[in-house]
Amino acid sequence: MLALTCGEPAGIGPDLAVMLAAGGVPPARVVAVGDPVLLAERATLLGLGVEIHTLAPGESPPLPRRGVLPVWPVALRSAAHPGCLDVANADHVLETLDVAIDACQRGRADGMVTAPLHKGVILDAGHVGFTGHTEYLRDACGVQEVVMMLATDSALHAREAGWPGETALRVALATTHLPLREVADAITAPRLERLLRILHADLQRWFGVSAPRIAVCGLNPHAGEGGHLGREELDVIIPALEGLRAEGLALDGPLPADTLFTPRHLEGVDAVLAMYHDQGLPVLKYAGFGRAANITLGLPLVRTSVDHGTALDLAGTGRADLGSLRVAVALAAEMAGRGV
Amino acid sequence: MLALTCGEPAGIGPDLAVMLAAGGVPPARVVAVGDPVLLAERATLLGLGVEIHTLAPGESPPLPRRGVLPVWPVALRSAAHPGCLDVANADHVLETLDVAIDACQRGRADGMVTAPLHKGVILDAGHVGFTGHTEYLRDACGVQEVVMMLATDSALHAREAGWPGETALRVALATTHLPLREVADAITAPRLERLLRILHADLQRWFGVSAPRIAVCGLNPHAGEGGHLGREELDVIIPALEGLRAEGLALDGPLPADTLFTPRHLEGVDAVLAMYHDQGLPVLKYAGFGRAANITLGLPLVRTSVDHGTALDLAGTGRADLGSLRVAVALAAEMAGRGV
Repeated sequence: MLALTCGEPAGIGPDLAVMLAAGGVPPARVVAVGDPVLLAERATLLGLGVEIHTLAPGESPPLPRRGVLPVWPVALRSAAHPGCLDVANADHVLETLDVAIDACQRGRADGMVTAPLHKGVILDAGHVGFTGHTEYLRDACGVQEVVMMLATDSALHAREAGWPGETALRVALATTHLPLREVADAITAPRLERLLRILHADLQRWFGVSAPRIAVCGLNPHAGEGGHLGREELDVIIPALEGLRAEGLALDGPLPADTLFTPRHLEGVDAVLAMYHDQGLPVLKYAGFGRAANITLGLPLVRTSVDHGTALDLAGTGRADLGSLRVAVALAAEMAGRGV
Repeated sequence: MLALTCGEPAGIGPDLAVMLAAGGVPPARVVAVGDPVLLAERATLLGLGVEIHTLAPGESPPLPRRGVLPVWPVALRSAAHPGCLDVANADHVLETLDVAIDACQRGRADGMVTAPLHKGVILDAGHVGFTGHTEYLRDACGVQEVVMMLATDSALHAREAGWPGETALRVALATTHLPLREVADAITAPRLERLLRILHADLQRWFGVSAPRIAVCGLNPHAGEGGHLGREELDVIIPALEGLRAEGLALDGPLPADTLFTPRHLEGVDAVLAMYHDQGLPVLKYAGFGRAANITLGLPLVRTSVDHGTALDLAGTGRADLGSLRVAVALAAEMAGRGV
């Protein structure tokens, strides 16, 4: 059972929720967390015959059935229109997250999947310091550090890219939404150690990999080329990896990012750690071809997300692409099934 | 007619030259520039029955024939052994480049293809400031600025990646071998203007694209997200692109690098300009799957190169991969056929 938060009500989140229900039996039991009236309106707007089944407090969701979307209701603060942001609904969005987190913590849900929210609206509503789902979940769960990882859908990825095996490509990030000029200073040995321990442990816990092997990118081109193109590999990354190997982690690298993503280096690798956003995600999204999802590691619960934004211009048009949400739901179901 | 410089004699360059001749009729008339004795030795070591045809001064190369490698001879300074670098041969390597450049400039060759050299050996031999083929060619040709671009083999790329059409992926770099922490300051409006003008002109001249469309990556994640993740897009990149559009260049962007490399944004795009090495090359090499080549734009002559290094450990073993050289030769032949 997965809780799907519908995200920004003016964006494509509500569209995706009803499209998921209309498109066939979802890959897992999914309960939407959002406003039932909004969801019914959006289904009508899209011409989808989806029945919105509002769950009463304590009511168990029905078995998954095509065309039926069970909903844990969270009322909008103000009527929502596709494409029109309204700060009045910022608290509604955060409340859907709180409901999903609570459901996971009480064992009523086995994991949560999030549709995109709009950071600007939440900041404008006065939630100073809000930086996104990932950090909100981190704080709500009381953990110190989380890791952002993106993954492609395994079967589809293998088929489209012609890679050997059925392995998904998984790319975790050592830094995320940081201006490029701040990246080098943010790569510290303690940070890499914390992130790699989380990545290692969560590949075991949620992905069923008993002895994870992780390939680590260098920070500089050619992984610094022995110090000629930057010293961070010699001074920071290599010592950090050596220490972790002594703890038993299986780590390749630091490897040049432009040769790492080739079959010779990826074979047998369970995840890649890229040092920054645009080092790892272009190749992941190229490979994923619109079929990738975002996973937050380091939490006591399962959380996946679509890998795209609110797409305000597509809300209500029927042109939103369900691909990433399907992958996010499938991955959360896989993880929840394996998690201990 | 293409001149193929054999590069570092202890590396896989000589192997690739004889493998190319042994492997069938090459995709173009190719004359190797190197030591005939070394090439004959390497062919024997690899068990390849390749006849080394040393050209006399002024002699025209024979028509391409399987198993025959015509050579413009440049003698080694010292006997070469696979895997064993020798500074004594640094001048030999540079002389092969001079011979190929001269052949292009005199019209005896229509372009040049370079096998990898070893920078360290050339520096150790006293050529202070040597930074690679690209800069050597730039200075030898007396131009101020060149652009490094990598391209995949069009047909193969389309087949393997399942992209629409038969388009090659082409990625040019605004900065190349620079430590990551120096990249942001190196992105200036004048630099972008110079590079984009070269890229535009050379797509017309060498690739037969009458009205090139170029997609430009942002520097920061999400292309700076309106200034929230860095200001270089607003302060530098957007103004530079605006100026160039007024000159008639068709430019998309700056776009987030992680969404640019998807069919929606790549369709109709003739080349991508990435801001730095690891933003553009991981996806290019993933897509190319060992079938990509390096092209130097901005020169008065055609120059392509393999996209890998000397691979000292593979020299003489027969395990070198001919894929990138085949693409480099095919691209040079295409460019030379179109160039005006």
